[in-house]
Amino acid sequence: MRTLAPTKVIAVDGGGSRCRVAVCAADGTVLGRAEGAAANPATDLGTAVRHLRAAIAEAARAAGIPENANGTEIAALPAWLALAGVVNERIAGAVAEAMPFRQCRVSDDRPSNMVGALGGADGFVAAIGTGSFLGRQAAGRRGFVGGWGLQLGDQASGAWLGRELLARVLLAVDGLAPRSDLINEVLTEFGDPGEIALFANRASPADHARLAPRVVAAARGGDRGALALMRAGSAYLARALRRLGFGPNDVLCLTGGLGPAYAEFLPPAFARNLIAPRGSALDGAIRLALELAR
Amino acid sequence: MRTLAPTKVIAVDGGGSRCRVAVCAADGTVLGRAEGAAANPATDLGTAVRHLRAAIAEAARAAGIPENANGTEIAALPAWLALAGVVNERIAGAVAEAMPFRQCRVSDDRPSNMVGALGGADGFVAAIGTGSFLGRQAAGRRGFVGGWGLQLGDQASGAWLGRELLARVLLAVDGLAPRSDLINEVLTEFGDPGEIALFANRASPADHARLAPRVVAAARGGDRGALALMRAGSAYLARALRRLGFGPNDVLCLTGGLGPAYAEFLPPAFARNLIAPRGSALDGAIRLALELAR
Repeated sequence: MRTLAPTKVIAVDGGGSRCRVAVCAADGTVLGRAEGAAANPATDLGTAVRHLRAAIAEAARAAGIPENANGTEIAALPAWLALAGVVNERIAGAVAEAMPFRQCRVSDDRPSNMVGALGGADGFVAAIGTGSFLGRQAAGRRGFVGGWGLQLGDQASGAWLGRELLARVLLAVDGLAPRSDLINEVLTEFGDPGEIALFANRASPADHARLAPRVVAAARGGDRGALALMRAGSAYLARALRRLGFGPNDVLCLTGGLGPAYAEFLPPAFARNLIAPRGSALDGAIRLALELAR
Repeated sequence: MRTLAPTKVIAVDGGGSRCRVAVCAADGTVLGRAEGAAANPATDLGTAVRHLRAAIAEAARAAGIPENANGTEIAALPAWLALAGVVNERIAGAVAEAMPFRQCRVSDDRPSNMVGALGGADGFVAAIGTGSFLGRQAAGRRGFVGGWGLQLGDQASGAWLGRELLARVLLAVDGLAPRSDLINEVLTEFGDPGEIALFANRASPADHARLAPRVVAAARGGDRGALALMRAGSAYLARALRRLGFGPNDVLCLTGGLGPAYAEFLPPAFARNLIAPRGSALDGAIRLALELAR
């Protein structure tokens, strides 16, 4: 039972490369910040928890929260942890249990990314970086499509574009897809198709995503291999937006490193009311933590 | 310069789980056999070479080739090594260099599988197990499509069917593909979609392939999710066969653990002249080694 509205909240944005923590006042003013190491609990729960606790303690110190109070002051603050790799309640529960907070919400990184990009307003998001997901916020409700990772999803993402490009090179080698300048270039760079297959056996999503800017550039130049991929990615985005209920007056924020690149490939119905991202995933996590505290 | 036709040849069939060696007389009679451990030079060249050399020495002993002749007798025999993972000349060359043979051919495992399945005769092969490839032998020439591995290819294979089933489950969760009994069953078994994504992040092709028999069985029972996958696999096979020049009078051998399952899903034009496999990949390697020696 809460008898007093909290005066501060804790917000965390974390993933495979780092985590960022903010301690904020009830009006959203940031009182203390910290950046820590990788915090993806699906990859390594113990490491993620260790990195999260260290960064949270550092942000608390920066916010002037007394260090030696047995964690009591920190534990009393409502906290929202938005972490890549929190794919279900099992993992969310494991992280929450390892945290000191009495009021704690652990989610994946889709809500924080969307809420940050939309600045808390209603609208649609297509978040397209190394991975991808789509989301909708409307009248206090949130819905999502995608975000399952490259092996089974992440359609239209940078990793997907890179991997599909390589798959298309091999189809072209087999005579099952047409050649194009980009396809010939990639084949020449790798030396032979076997080297492409070996690369893909070991490549991380980030490794594949390094090829994505070339797909975008070649598609802009009219390369038909690259255009086929951007159109396949756009078709997925359009299907997912339709599924989420996108209508003619809705705004769409194309965010992530590759989001804006899709603007010129999306059907006009979706590219009509584009808005720029208003904030980061950490900004979104701060809004979510404040919402939790309300 | 060869002055005498060799009286024996060595044939090797190898891959990620084991290797098999046969020493044969010029008429194909097997004089000695051995089975060794994993020999995929793309995964681990040093280990593959060690396992190959051990199995070759054992087969030579079994064939009564004197052990202590500094390898001279073995080295004089023409050898064909057909190994999964030999995706290009770089890897073939590295293996050949580590072998004692003066006349040695190292290939991937497609020619041996095809020649074995066709018993050396002309025709077409669709080899569909954990992975997949298609091949044609006609008038002394051989051509292949596929065999690039699950990350970029292996369409229609067991691993591909399993992975595509899981991808389809997640599309159905997102409302982008229809539900079916099989899709609902798999979702219930995993518990939630996040567990499916986590499984796929770590699954080997063999892990995915374990789901394939259920796809085949459900498709036979009319499950529309499973049917969509078998039809997509069949469409790829039909395209690849057309590309290889399949004509109305040609024979097709559906081989590998899943090959025969495609018979009822292939267009009649391809399923008209089906033949059963006549021999194994080791039988094919023996034919290839004898061909090399001729």
